[in-house]
Amino acid sequence: MDRKDRWMRKGVAPLYLALVHHPVLNRRGEVIASAVTNLDLHDLARCACTFDLPACFVVTPLRDQQALVQRLVRHWREGVGSELAPDRERALRLLRLAESIEEAKANLVAECGARPRVWATTARDGYGGMPYGLARSRLRKDPTPVLLLLGTGWGLDEAVMSQVEGVLEPIRGANGYNHLSVRCAAAIMLDRLLSPA
Amino acid sequence: MDRKDRWMRKGVAPLYLALVHHPVLNRRGEVIASAVTNLDLHDLARCACTFDLPACFVVTPLRDQQALVQRLVRHWREGVGSELAPDRERALRLLRLAESIEEAKANLVAECGARPRVWATTARDGYGGMPYGLARSRLRKDPTPVLLLLGTGWGLDEAVMSQVEGVLEPIRGANGYNHLSVRCAAAIMLDRLLSPA
Repeated sequence: MDRKDRWMRKGVAPLYLALVHHPVLNRRGEVIASAVTNLDLHDLARCACTFDLPACFVVTPLRDQQALVQRLVRHWREGVGSELAPDRERALRLLRLAESIEEAKANLVAECGARPRVWATTARDGYGGMPYGLARSRLRKDPTPVLLLLGTGWGLDEAVMSQVEGVLEPIRGANGYNHLSVRCAAAIMLDRLLSPA
Repeated sequence: MDRKDRWMRKGVAPLYLALVHHPVLNRRGEVIASAVTNLDLHDLARCACTFDLPACFVVTPLRDQQALVQRLVRHWREGVGSELAPDRERALRLLRLAESIEEAKANLVAECGARPRVWATTARDGYGGMPYGLARSRLRKDPTPVLLLLGTGWGLDEAVMSQVEGVLEPIRGANGYNHLSVRCAAAIMLDRLLSPA
């Protein structure tokens, strides 16, 4: 039984992550394709494996960045890395390349037979964010897969934000500082959405 | 009012992190001093800032590693980094070097006028780990500062584990996989312990 089916048997919608490198913003608010960060891939894959996600998409339209992702994953899946660190191999196996958010969605339609709900995450205010408790219960009430978009750089472009079905509320700490790394933010989000109660 | 006092006024014990590079284990279970990882410092500092911790110690007895930490922090606190990214400066200001766990404890005695409680974290079973709900309430019932130790490498040495006052339960996901990065584990821990309810 695959990971997707394990969630559906528990009555929980399968949640897929997408680490989006385009279209995202830079510090000046311009739309860019950000560079892939090695440790993002490791940390996101390890988070995805911990919370039993079926997959984590790495979204980039840049051919050289796609090649970098493929080389890195191959090292840990097939190369000397897989012998030294089988736990890492098990996690990195969950990464899937996609050249766009649309391609990730199409992949889920093919895999799940249903159009996924697409949710975005942001550290910015002003989107009337969905509280985590509500998002958690939505995953349990509707089995339609969810694709959760994580923006790199300075966050997802407005063109993405305006088209998603839901936006999770920003992670608030204790004092208004909202500059977590995407790695740490993803970990907290998955824990809030999927940890055993 | 400093961060420590803000917590105490709320009736919550100030929580300090220590990212420990010695004594920790390598993959073969040998005691080593691990290398400092640049992104660990950034991510831990950003987590600490998000959850308003008074400080995060970087514990290493190695002089060259201490110099590396100092250079990195100086770049972001005083160099060009502080102009480009004032948010990063605000976070990295929370890092403090210590050559041993003992030195971090002594620093807290000087700062808080009380011997801190020392809690450890681990991904390993067998320590009768303190559930997060209990740890959260202990922070609210007793104002004595807590020093929370995070091991790098393959985790804290037994000599450390056997001397702490408490061990937090491992973070469990959905399927027994327990190989989160220390960055992601720390983010989840702080969220569970300190996020507004």
